[in-house]
Parts: sequence; structure tokens; C-alpha cells
Amino acid sequence: MQFTAQQISLLLNGTVEGDALVAVDKLAKIEEGTPGSLSFLANPKYEQHLYTTGASIVIINKDYVLNGPVSATLIRVDNAYSAFSVLLEQYNTIKLNKTGIEQPSFIHPTAKVGSNVFIGAFAYVGPNATIGDNSKIYPNTYIADNVTIGNNVTLFSGVKVYFDCVLGDNVIIHSGAVIGSDGFGFAPNPDGSYNKISQIGNVVIEENVEIGANSTVDRATMGSTIIRKGVKIDNLVQIAHNVEVGQNTVIAGQAGISGSTKIGEQAVIGGQVGIAGHLTISKGSQFSAQTGVNSSTREEGKQWGGSPYLPLKDYLRAHVNIRRLPELEKRVAELEKMIAELHNNK
Amino acid sequence: MQFTAQQISLLLNGTVEGDALVAVDKLAKIEEGTPGSLSFLANPKYEQHLYTTGASIVIINKDYVLNGPVSATLIRVDNAYSAFSVLLEQYNTIKLNKTGIEQPSFIHPTAKVGSNVFIGAFAYVGPNATIGDNSKIYPNTYIADNVTIGNNVTLFSGVKVYFDCVLGDNVIIHSGAVIGSDGFGFAPNPDGSYNKISQIGNVVIEENVEIGANSTVDRATMGSTIIRKGVKIDNLVQIAHNVEVGQNTVIAGQAGISGSTKIGEQAVIGGQVGIAGHLTISKGSQFSAQTGVNSSTREEGKQWGGSPYLPLKDYLRAHVNIRRLPELEKRVAELEKMIAELHNNK
Amino acid sequence: MQFTAQQISLLLNGTVEGDALVAVDKLAKIEEGTPGSLSFLANPKYEQHLYTTGASIVIINKDYVLNGPVSATLIRVDNAYSAFSVLLEQYNTIKLNKTGIEQPSFIHPTAKVGSNVFIGAFAYVGPNATIGDNSKIYPNTYIADNVTIGNNVTLFSGVKVYFDCVLGDNVIIHSGAVIGSDGFGFAPNPDGSYNKISQIGNVVIEENVEIGANSTVDRATMGSTIIRKGVKIDNLVQIAHNVEVGQNTVIAGQAGISGSTKIGEQAVIGGQVGIAGHLTISKGSQFSAQTGVNSSTREEGKQWGGSPYLPLKDYLRAHVNIRRLPELEKRVAELEKMIAELHNNK
Repeated sequence: MQFTAQQISLLLNGTVEGDALVAVDKLAKIEEGTPGSLSFLANPKYEQHLYTTGASIVIINKDYVLNGPVSATLIRVDNAYSAFSVLLEQYNTIKLNKTGIEQPSFIHPTAKVGSNVFIGAFAYVGPNATIGDNSKIYPNTYIADNVTIGNNVTLFSGVKVYFDCVLGDNVIIHSGAVIGSDGFGFAPNPDGSYNKISQIGNVVIEENVEIGANSTVDRATMGSTIIRKGVKIDNLVQIAHNVEVGQNTVIAGQAGISGSTKIGEQAVIGGQVGIAGHLTISKGSQFSAQTGVNSSTREEGKQWGGSPYLPLKDYLRAHVNIRRLPELEKRVAELEKMIAELHNNK
Repeated sequence: MQFTAQQISLLLNGTVEGDALVAVDKLAKIEEGTPGSLSFLANPKYEQHLYTTGASIVIINKDYVLNGPVSATLIRVDNAYSAFSVLLEQYNTIKLNKTGIEQPSFIHPTAKVGSNVFIGAFAYVGPNATIGDNSKIYPNTYIADNVTIGNNVTLFSGVKVYFDCVLGDNVIIHSGAVIGSDGFGFAPNPDGSYNKISQIGNVVIEENVEIGANSTVDRATMGSTIIRKGVKIDNLVQIAHNVEVGQNTVIAGQAGISGSTKIGEQAVIGGQVGIAGHLTISKGSQFSAQTGVNSSTREEGKQWGGSPYLPLKDYLRAHVNIRRLPELEKRVAELEKMIAELHNNK
Repeated sequence: MQFTAQQISLLLNGTVEGDALVAVDKLAKIEEGTPGSLSFLANPKYEQHLYTTGASIVIINKDYVLNGPVSATLIRVDNAYSAFSVLLEQYNTIKLNKTGIEQPSFIHPTAKVGSNVFIGAFAYVGPNATIGDNSKIYPNTYIADNVTIGNNVTLFSGVKVYFDCVLGDNVIIHSGAVIGSDGFGFAPNPDGSYNKISQIGNVVIEENVEIGANSTVDRATMGSTIIRKGVKIDNLVQIAHNVEVGQNTVIAGQAGISGSTKIGEQAVIGGQVGIAGHLTISKGSQFSAQTGVNSSTREEGKQWGGSPYLPLKDYLRAHVNIRRLPELEKRVAELEKMIAELHNNK
């Protein structure tokens, strides 16, 4: 699809400088702009690119003063960054606007499917599953028996949702993520083997949650593993059985939360962080990447690092000390020599 | 399905106190019990909930003495915990009791499929593959050429098993796990590029193994990557080519075992642990979470921690020392000052 | 398929010693050889097995001098190891030589599919997607709209490629890997919730790249996440949005690269390594397993370890010092006692 500078300007409530009829069909960074593309300038750091960009249209702030000739058509708006964000979102909405039911797909006769949905080929919707309005179930996705899925939900290709799980409105789950697999629970036998403990709970994901590609969220042994509303989870993250992740918490790639741990709201968990089981993590706690958390936190909003974890400042200081350890050992050896001399001279 | 207190009591060889005809259709924790649900009381810590629970039926020990009025119907048994475990298992068995072959699925004419199996829609069973009796192959699962699968095996939705791999009886594999992908083997060329080394071995998984969601087990370069019987592997675990994992070993989430390493039996490997290649790990070794193992272990049944790893006790002690490092540096500086003074005063 | 010693010898330009008509149908390590299998002897460490192996045929070097009777037929060649590698590759090529389009599969009428391809059952090829000649798309694989796939590409079962991504010639991607999922980008709101930042870029994978099972490569916010030619990526690796991985770099299992980081060519990144965002890693940098990289590197070809990372030698030395910390504390305490004595005796 092509849009002219005039059309875009109308949409953004802006004013056009230059050729109002020039047309674009893609978005680009200003330093990578080519003819037919639309860019924006918000960060003064990138200002020099305005005069050399190959983009056909650039969105800039109303009050921006030019320092030279510009070949692109300009659209002036109140806030170039937020105007461009609006376009990004519109672009994506148009791009991902699929509806209809592709064939072959499998929709059990007892499943309830809302209006205006997309169900891709080779998608599976099991007995008594419910899918809300405007939801998109991409190809090769599996929705097991009795799963409930809200409105405006997107499950990208290859997501697997085990039986009885519940997903709220506006949830987005990326390819390969697994929701509701069995918790890791086994009881040891005298002969060293293990008996599986049946995992009969489920997973509840509240509204506005996003979960990244190939992440896993295990079902509860009994009750629910709960992801509260607004939580954002990156790729390859492990959430074990009976965990509860508090509202608006953010979890970066490859982090893992062990069984029955409760994470407070607004926490920030860095990449590859590991949090042990049966802990309580207080609201707003922040863990830097690779932190190992082996006990509950008490204070809110504190920063942590290291494995086992320490207050971030203490950890960083200790790490500087560690680098100086060879030097410290030498200083101690020198002291020992001097003391020995003093003794002998006594 | 609904069951009355009387029916359940008969099954558990118990005795009913209260309304024998009250019916339940789900299981719940005693503190979360609602009308229509069945709970149990085993841990005295939860005793107070017995008197307030909304559950319709509670299973308790024969010899438990009531301290007040209870509204739920009680079923008294020898051991409330193990009686409840029996019910959990029965519940799950009924819940997951699927059989039959859904359409469309792909079963190659040369594949051999046992009796009483479930093969879900969009599942693929390749040429010369064998599936034993009572096995369940969930939708969107891929079983390549010449794969052998035993009896009572469960492959949840989206499991991928590459050609020539062998799975024993009672194996359970969760969604998205990949069995038999190529080992990571490349030979460097003088120009900096790499040549792939063909990986022509397979993976052998013995009986009673469980493997978690999105875990990966690579095929051997030649010979077999072997998971011995009774091994339990959590989610997002990486097992590299030619690894052997000993009987009844347990591996927690996001741990990784590098190529050709042999893990002894009854080991316990914590979350996010990394074990380097070509090592031998002795029987019963225990690694705490995030441990980094860069050499073989000799002693059996020992606990380890840290990266690179140390005996767990040494590691924990060293970590306390690390926290005190800034203090230690100050003490050394103080000593240096005092020694200088002593020198000057001499 | 069966091959005689004579046929194999012809292929390898070798000479046969023993029964030229003995036939084999599989490859085996010399110590695991059984009748009907073909082995090789290159490493003198395994020499003893030549005299006891059950293999029917063994490939050995031309100049190898026997020290006893051998029951296997021998094929003598210039270089036993490279001769065997040739066979390995041929074996695998024959083994994986699938072509044709299985049914049911989904190929959009606007998709362009080259000649001599394999498209497995339940594979999905979206609108305007292009698949080059001789490529293999295994069952249950998903190729979204506008994806471009080169020649001789192999996508194993269950790979997911999001819209607009580009894969060069000879790329191999293993089961469950996800290419082009959304980058992890969110803008905070005053109420603590987050707004999704649309991710409209793509992923470009150049020729001769291999990506392991269940790894994830996120699409760029704008522009491209780029994997340069010859890069080899193991299982369960996370590559975040706008990352660029330089030519011939090798990344081991469970490593993670955060957003916008540029990795130089010929780097070697160990298992479970984490690299923070917006960094530049110089050419040939080597990171040992579990390293945590929190700043850019300047020097080329250097080895690093630890978290936060240090030059590998410094890290290993510091680690030795850490083990001696309890001892060092004792030495300091001893010094303090002696100094106090000296003071008192003054």
C-alpha cells in the first residue's frame, strides 16, 4: 500500500513542506532511508542525517529549525517521536490484520469461537475450548480441551496451551511458547527411582500479558500458576509450577523462576536471572542479568546483583575487590615479612 | 464427572463422617476449597482450614481428633496424603484418557501403530516408525523415519523426534521438546569458515524418563546420546551430542550438559547449571543452581556450588568472605599504617 | 541400502584387504562395531580395537602396519579420517534426501516454490513467500507472508519463520527454532503499565548459517537483525532485536545476546554466556562458558571469563585467590594480633 505525504499529514494533523504528492510504502531509520520510505527525526544526535537521507518523507517537530537544504518532503507535527509511533502501530495493525478460518484446521464441535477471529491452517482447538472475539490463532497452534481464551488475543504459530488454562483479553504469545505443561514434581522411592506427582492445576494469564518465543509456563500442582495483568516476558523464560508473577513485572530472556515463588508487582528481572523456589520477592525489586536469588527479599524497589545475590552496590564493590585480590595477597605477604623482621629486631 | 463421598470412600477403603451423598467434581487445596470440591488434610500446619473450608469433602487421617464443628463431609483413611495422591492420579488418568486417530493426521503406510493409541490431528508418523500400545501422540507432533516408540508413551503437542531415535516404555515428553537434532559439531577451515560434521548417531531414551517442555536432546555424532531409565528432565534443558545421563538423575530447568559428558546415576543437577564437555560426573553428585562445572568429579554423593565449581561448603564460605572483602582491605591498609609507624618509631 | 567393500573402496579410491564382497549397511565407532557395520581407525589411541572389533569393514591408512590378525575386511586409503568423513556426508545426504510435496500441506497460491523441493505434511507456506531450489521444509513448519528462503535450505520440523524474514542459501535451521518473533520493546506509562513498541523490522540470515533447536532470533524494531554468513548457533540460544552477529562466529548452547549488540566476526561465545545490550564485541573475542559481558570489548582475539567479565587469566587467578580467602582472613587476623603485641611491648 502507498500513502502520500498529504494523506499521512492529515492522519497526524501535521503540515507538509515540499512535494505533498510524494508517496511511500515503507518505514525506515533516517540513516537507512531510501526513496519510497518514511522516516522521522526526534533525537538531535541524528540531525545530520536529515540533510543526506534518501527517505522520501521525514516527520519532524513543528519548531525544528533547518540548517541547510533538505531533499525529503517534511511533515511537521507537535511530537515527531509519538507521531511516528502511531504510524508504526497502524502499519503493524494493517500488516497483521488476518481474519477467517483457513483449511485444514481442527475445531472441535464443542468449541466456542467468537466473531472476527483468524484461525490458521493446522491449528487445533480442542473440546469445550473458548476463543473470544477478534483473536488470532496462527497456523500450527494447539489449544487443548477446556482452554478459555479472551478477546483480541494473538497466539503466534506453534504456541501450545494445555487443557484448562485461561488467557485474558489482549494477551500476545509468541511462537513455540508452552503454557500449562506439567510442573516438575516427583516423589523419591526407596530404590532411588521417582514417582510422578500428578499436576492437576492450571495456568491463569491475565489481560495485557505478552510472552516471548519458546518460553514455558508450567501448570500448578493444584490451584493456578498466575501471571498478573500487564506482565511482559521475553524469550526462553521458565516459569515453574505455582509461581505467581505480580502485575506489570518485566522478565528478560532466559530467566527462570522456580516453583511456588511469588514475584511482587513492577519487578524487573534481568536476562539469565535464576530465582529459587518458595521465595517472596518484594514489589519493584530489580535484578541485574545473571543474578542468582536464593532467599526472599524484604525491601521494596531495591537493586540486586551477583550469585548468590547481594545489594547491587555491594556486589559491584566486591567485584572490584576481587580484581584486586592478587594485589591484596601480595600486600599481606609483605606485611608478614615486615612483622617477622620487626620481631627479629626486637 | 461427579462422585459421592460414599463412592470415594469405597475406593479409598475409608469411612464416611457426615453426608455420604454429597458429590464433588474437582480437587482443591483445603484453603481454597469451594462447594463441589474435594480436599485433604495431611500437614498439621493447615489444620485451622479444616474448620472453615468451603470444600464439600475432606480426606483426613483415621486418628485425627476434631477440635470443633466441621461442615464438610469427612472421609477417614489410614494415610490422607497417599490416599489423595491416588485420587490425583486417577483424576489425571481419566482426564488424559484419549484414544483414537484424529483427522487429518499423517501416518506413513510403512509405520506400525500399536493398539489403543491416540494420534491427534496434524500429528506426523514417518516411514518405518513404530508406536507401541496405549501410547498418546498429541496433535502437531512429529515422529520421523525409523523412530521406535514403546508402550504407554505420551508425547504432548508439538514434540519433534528426529529419525532413528528410540524411546522406551512409559516415557513422557512435554510440548516443544526436540529429540535427535544434530549435535553441534564443525571443523574449522583455513579461511575461518566451518564445515559441518555429519551427525549420524541417534538418541536412546530408556523407560520411565520424563522430559520437560522445549528441552533439547541432540543426536550423537556416531553411536547414541543416552538418557538412562528413570531420568527426570525439566523445561528448557540442553543435552548435547554423545552425552549419557545416568539412571534416576534429575535435571532442573535451563541446565545444560555439553558434548560427550557422562553423568552418573542418581545425580541432582540444579537450575541453570552448566557442565562442560568430555567430563565424568560421579554417582549422586549434587550441583546447586547456576553452578559451572569445568572438570570431572571423583567423589560420589558430594555437593557443589559456584562457577567454576567448589565443594558447596567452601563455596558458601568463600562467598561470605567476598562480602567482607572491602572490610578486609581496610584492615590490611590499617596494618600497613601501623607497621609504617612502628618502623618509624624504631 | 547395502554396499560391499569393493564398492566403497572404489568410491574412496582405496585398496581392499580381505573379503571384497562383504556388505555393510551402517556406520559405527570401531569399539562398537557389529557385523554389517563399517568403521574407521585414525586415532592410534583406538588401535587395540582393530583386532577385536565386530565391524565387517574398517577403513585404515595406507601405511598402517598390522600387529596381529584382523577379522574385518580392510580398506586402505591415504587418510582414513577424511575418507570416513566423506562417507558420513554421503550417508547423511542419502538419508535426508526427501523431495516432493506431502499432503495435506498449505501452500498459498501466491507463494513461489522452486524445483526439487521437499515440503512435508502440515507445513505452511504463506502469501508471497519464496522457497528456492532443492530446499527441504519438514512437516509442521511455518513460513509466514513475504518470507524469502534461498536454495538448498533445510528447515527441520516445527521451525517458525515470521513475515518478511530472509534466509540465504544453504541455511540449516533445527526443529522448534523461531525466527522473527517480536523484539522485547515496551515503553513505560505513568501508571506502571507498559505500551508495546511495534516491531516492524525483520531478520536477515545470510548463507551457510546453522541454527540449533529451539533457538530464538527476534526481528528488529526497524531495520534488520542480521546473522552474517557462516555463523553457527547451537540450541536454546537467544538473539535479541537489532543484534548483528559477525561472519563465522560460533555461539554455544543457551547463550543470550541482548538488543542492538554487534558481535564481530570469528568470535567464539561459550555456553550460557550472557552479553548485555548496545555493546560492540571485537573480532575474534572468545568468552568461556557462563561469562557475563556488561561492556564493549576493544582488543581483538582476546579470551574472557567471569561475571562481570575479566580477561580470562585474571579471572582464573582471582578465582584461585577466592578459594584462599578464608586463609587470607586468618593471616590478616594473625598479623593484627602480632601488631597489637608489638605495640604493647613497645
